[in-house]
Amino acid sequence: MKYCFGVDIGGTTVKMGLFEATGTILEKWEIKTHTEEEGKAILPDVAASLKEKKAEHDLADADIIGVGVGVPAPVTEEGIVFGSANLGWKYKEVKKELEELTGLDVEVGNDANVAALGEMWKGGGRGYDSIVMVTLGTGVGGGVILQGKILTGCKGAGGEIGHMKVNMDETRVCGCGNKGCLEQYASATGIVNMAKENVPEGSYLADKKVTAKAVFDGAKEGDAYCMKVVEKFGRYLGVALSNVAHVVDPEAFVIGGGVSAAGQILLDVVEKYYNENSMFALKNKSFHLAELGNDAGIYGAVRMVLFK
Amino acid sequence: MKYCFGVDIGGTTVKMGLFEATGTILEKWEIKTHTEEEGKAILPDVAASLKEKKAEHDLADADIIGVGVGVPAPVTEEGIVFGSANLGWKYKEVKKELEELTGLDVEVGNDANVAALGEMWKGGGRGYDSIVMVTLGTGVGGGVILQGKILTGCKGAGGEIGHMKVNMDETRVCGCGNKGCLEQYASATGIVNMAKENVPEGSYLADKKVTAKAVFDGAKEGDAYCMKVVEKFGRYLGVALSNVAHVVDPEAFVIGGGVSAAGQILLDVVEKYYNENSMFALKNKSFHLAELGNDAGIYGAVRMVLFK
Repeated sequence: MKYCFGVDIGGTTVKMGLFEATGTILEKWEIKTHTEEEGKAILPDVAASLKEKKAEHDLADADIIGVGVGVPAPVTEEGIVFGSANLGWKYKEVKKELEELTGLDVEVGNDANVAALGEMWKGGGRGYDSIVMVTLGTGVGGGVILQGKILTGCKGAGGEIGHMKVNMDETRVCGCGNKGCLEQYASATGIVNMAKENVPEGSYLADKKVTAKAVFDGAKEGDAYCMKVVEKFGRYLGVALSNVAHVVDPEAFVIGGGVSAAGQILLDVVEKYYNENSMFALKNKSFHLAELGNDAGIYGAVRMVLFK
Repeated sequence: MKYCFGVDIGGTTVKMGLFEATGTILEKWEIKTHTEEEGKAILPDVAASLKEKKAEHDLADADIIGVGVGVPAPVTEEGIVFGSANLGWKYKEVKKELEELTGLDVEVGNDANVAALGEMWKGGGRGYDSIVMVTLGTGVGGGVILQGKILTGCKGAGGEIGHMKVNMDETRVCGCGNKGCLEQYASATGIVNMAKENVPEGSYLADKKVTAKAVFDGAKEGDAYCMKVVEKFGRYLGVALSNVAHVVDPEAFVIGGGVSAAGQILLDVVEKYYNENSMFALKNKSFHLAELGNDAGIYGAVRMVLFK
């Protein structure tokens, strides 16, 4: 039996997993992400943890196919990052450094892209080999998988769906510096901003803390204002995914992240606006909820190594 | 020396070329497209013309690597078309039929995608292997080439950039049945429609037939109204190409079609709005004019066969 490590480096913790080459997960664990001093300890910490785990399981280097890594930044095909605000990194040759630290083969990808690959392999996108995944959390991440491979793009910015412009008239500025990005309407933060604009008296939201969950809960109970906010959310996301489909024509969409906990109501509204705005050949794609939650990254990281 | 045929099937004529395997074109010619009776004569006519040309040049089947074909419809990876309004075709297994008719290997692609491949190989996209091409004619066509290959998509609708939605508030209907498509603002027809809306007295356009060319000519002469229309055009196209870049992150853009004859003024305005709306990692891509004109299709068709 051969083995493989999956590593998902986030701003707070590094999630790690030991997998059989078949894709079965044997164990998962976390270490803290030390972002001080331009995050210089992160890769050595990962290497040390992998070494420990190898010793624990009595694994030789020859038993290990490689290490897949997801990082929160654009990553080039060569495994290079030009900077990651979340990790404190500036220019870093992640693949090269971690290969030197571990003596193992390393593959590196953007975390959202890697999570998309994980969902295609073992999650909501099972059975497809070309999917678009969108992750609705504090921000909006995206990943495009075509014929089983991550669409990386020439600067590692493939699948940056959250920063597609969906509103030509927006005056507020997005985190990226531009205006009218999908993230401003489809992230948890974006939904809260839309909902807070104009809460009418007597609305479901009137006596509550306005959260994305509260908005969807209100819509499920039939509250007219919440339903209006959900429609607005669905229209922006549905149009954005339709625009993505006009570029890459995937088999299916997978929607993940905290906001997707809203479930079927969210899929329904996005699908409605998707179909309303797509040309004939692109209508009626499959829409699925993500299934792997926070583990999507380690699964996708492993898949990257197994089918590179 | 080995040879290759390139075939570009349009609604009026079929453009054809005989190439050396090196990519040098030896001869090009055209035949009429017979669209009557669901276009049943088109492929037999193409096969007959190829046979004639083989005899003329004394070429054996063994001398010919294959036939590349572009058709005005979405085409699956298997060379199947589900219908082409321009040709009268319903469901047609183009690759299979033409292979049976000619006894040669055939590769089939969507005409806009194939033209993009041609421009990457021998035209405005030379030196890159990942480009997005947009063709501004009566309609707006598009093609995405990633690492030297056409992005076909699962229903053959990859690169259908002309039908991305860029205006959420449009009330007029596009040819595709939806509203607010890029084609409604960036095609020759779209530019004329925008320009005609409100021609002020004394404008450059006031005493002329309003054409896309006249609008750009007026802008070049400094006419304020024409410049306003060009800015509007540039904003829609620049934002659309920025949205495409957030999905596939290409190295360069190539802009072709009749409207692109406007030249540098067009590149400049599109680039301006592209950069204004793109996230940091995607700014400052290269923008080029197409160079092959109507021959892009036969070049791309040949390239499809040579590097399949």
